[in-house]
Amino acid sequence: MVAPASYKPVLGVSMGDPGGIGPEVIVKALAERDVRLMAKWRIHGVRSALERAAAAARIEPFWWRVGAGSGLVDTTTAHDVVLVDHEHEPSDTSVHAAGDTKLGGALSFRFVEDAIADAMRTADDPLRTSGLVTGPISKAAWALAGRGKYPGHTELLATRFRAKRSGMMFVTPRLRVILATAHVPLMEVRNVLTIGRIHDAIDLGVEACRSLGVAAPRVAVCGLNPHAGEGGLLGDEDERLIEPAIRVARDQVAASGGEVSGPWPADTIFGKAVEGAFDLVVAMYHDQGLIPVKLLDRDEAVNVTVGLPSVRTSPDHGTAFDIAGRNRAHPGSMASAMRLAARMAVTVEATSTR
Amino acid sequence: MVAPASYKPVLGVSMGDPGGIGPEVIVKALAERDVRLMAKWRIHGVRSALERAAAAARIEPFWWRVGAGSGLVDTTTAHDVVLVDHEHEPSDTSVHAAGDTKLGGALSFRFVEDAIADAMRTADDPLRTSGLVTGPISKAAWALAGRGKYPGHTELLATRFRAKRSGMMFVTPRLRVILATAHVPLMEVRNVLTIGRIHDAIDLGVEACRSLGVAAPRVAVCGLNPHAGEGGLLGDEDERLIEPAIRVARDQVAASGGEVSGPWPADTIFGKAVEGAFDLVVAMYHDQGLIPVKLLDRDEAVNVTVGLPSVRTSPDHGTAFDIAGRNRAHPGSMASAMRLAARMAVTVEATSTR
Repeated sequence: MVAPASYKPVLGVSMGDPGGIGPEVIVKALAERDVRLMAKWRIHGVRSALERAAAAARIEPFWWRVGAGSGLVDTTTAHDVVLVDHEHEPSDTSVHAAGDTKLGGALSFRFVEDAIADAMRTADDPLRTSGLVTGPISKAAWALAGRGKYPGHTELLATRFRAKRSGMMFVTPRLRVILATAHVPLMEVRNVLTIGRIHDAIDLGVEACRSLGVAAPRVAVCGLNPHAGEGGLLGDEDERLIEPAIRVARDQVAASGGEVSGPWPADTIFGKAVEGAFDLVVAMYHDQGLIPVKLLDRDEAVNVTVGLPSVRTSPDHGTAFDIAGRNRAHPGSMASAMRLAARMAVTVEATSTR
Repeated sequence: MVAPASYKPVLGVSMGDPGGIGPEVIVKALAERDVRLMAKWRIHGVRSALERAAAAARIEPFWWRVGAGSGLVDTTTAHDVVLVDHEHEPSDTSVHAAGDTKLGGALSFRFVEDAIADAMRTADDPLRTSGLVTGPISKAAWALAGRGKYPGHTELLATRFRAKRSGMMFVTPRLRVILATAHVPLMEVRNVLTIGRIHDAIDLGVEACRSLGVAAPRVAVCGLNPHAGEGGLLGDEDERLIEPAIRVARDQVAASGGEVSGPWPADTIFGKAVEGAFDLVVAMYHDQGLIPVKLLDRDEAVNVTVGLPSVRTSPDHGTAFDIAGRNRAHPGSMASAMRLAARMAVTVEATSTR
């Protein structure tokens, strides 16, 4: 089925660290009318941080506030934007401290947990959301708050959703890139890069492309070594791991009209993707995929967690404590993350109700 | 001293594989008046290949031909462009075969050898050149011709010039990048990346910046691991190898007004360099440096061999046998390589005669 044009998904937004630029980019992004009208937005955060950001940017508050745990929020609300307010102590300005604090860590962890809980509700629950957009958190602050077990959102999400496999994908106006490995020391990539892992990245990336509206994606897989190994002269992983993964994936992808090719030399393949030859690039490690993403479209790059039963996007930047509270943050990446989540949620909901 | 404005260096140009796009991009680049007038150019190649490329591009031949070994060429010639003609058999069209051939390998190896020999002549030799610009060769063809010992130009040059240390640098309109390691399987970078090697790359890069007119370069050194190791959480090389190399280099570079910083997360540092925050980026491995170079300025990127007592540049592309002989090659990278070699030669000659 195709969802009716009037259908609006409900999406959670976790504010991120209240002392970072999360509140500011959320206010600025949702002040853009086209973003605000794409979904029903449910922000998990603290009121004072939003108000402070709005005042600095001279934006009229546009959200309807309900107290966290009050139950006064559901998908039938007439409001485009609802703030689920976890205000700690209205007079406690330490919540705005621009740095790693235990309070900031505890609150930002709670925001994400609540946004996840809403996304995990059953379809008949009126509080259910189709997914979440996460504001930037500080891993050090999470650790201070006793949440150091999770190095970041991706790991927490995979645990909560009990995802067997998940991955990090980046979407920009010109590139879609998925990582086969992410936060691994470069020289230890050899210990985690397997045929299965590369295959999963191809497969998850193709699935994500479909939810992004690319039904028959053309997928380019990067080589690991210089010149993609130059026929074995420069390392054997390209032939030993990447080629078999491509062979396994090829038939599955071809069945839907898509195609997979590679391993390609990583130094030329991103340019070809930008020119339109490919819909998705599968990178073998963090910097291989992130260098082109951040070089080309830094202010519009969106991080998408793939492999979850729910939509999750986030802006591709951190808390930026150094500029927080000064009305200097660029909301482009957050706005892009929100637009993308809304588009994906419509597709995912349409598919799941088939 | 500053060389007089009228000073023109003499530079060798090796044609590369006669069956590749080398002849075509050389003819097209030197047909650009500004390029041709920057130096006295001495092409080592075969006449028929140049003539064929010129005819296809409707360019009037502009070179003065002398037979190889005739001795009829020296720096006092009035001609801007001299072709040292190694024509094999004027009637032997196999010299234009667009593919890996023994003949193509033997000739292209010879062109480079002759260009190197001219660059190694003593200062009082009228045949001496200040350096060379090399056209693209096929490593497979070199192997067919029994020259497989040298995987490419860089290794041959280092051997001939007896260079203790040399490196690959890339210069584009927006970036200068030097590699600490190059044609090494990625997972073996751990075996070759040392403090000394990183220090050499910084040092050679700074030296090259000076010959490119940047007297006090601001140098950014990339981390090896994601997020430059995130304080040791993601690998120890950034702290164990890169930081010490930066510390050793810092004082030397500072003495001339420059500065060295890092290790920086590789996924954001190239963007900062493009915005003008740095004059040189030191990359730890091939793709880390080449992905941004080729993504941003593919048609104008120049490969510079640093650490030689002579100038050497080359376009950043291969023989492109698939489009050779069809007048479809873009001469931008070759023209940039020629301009850069001329500029560097003027600086180097000025410095050496101080």
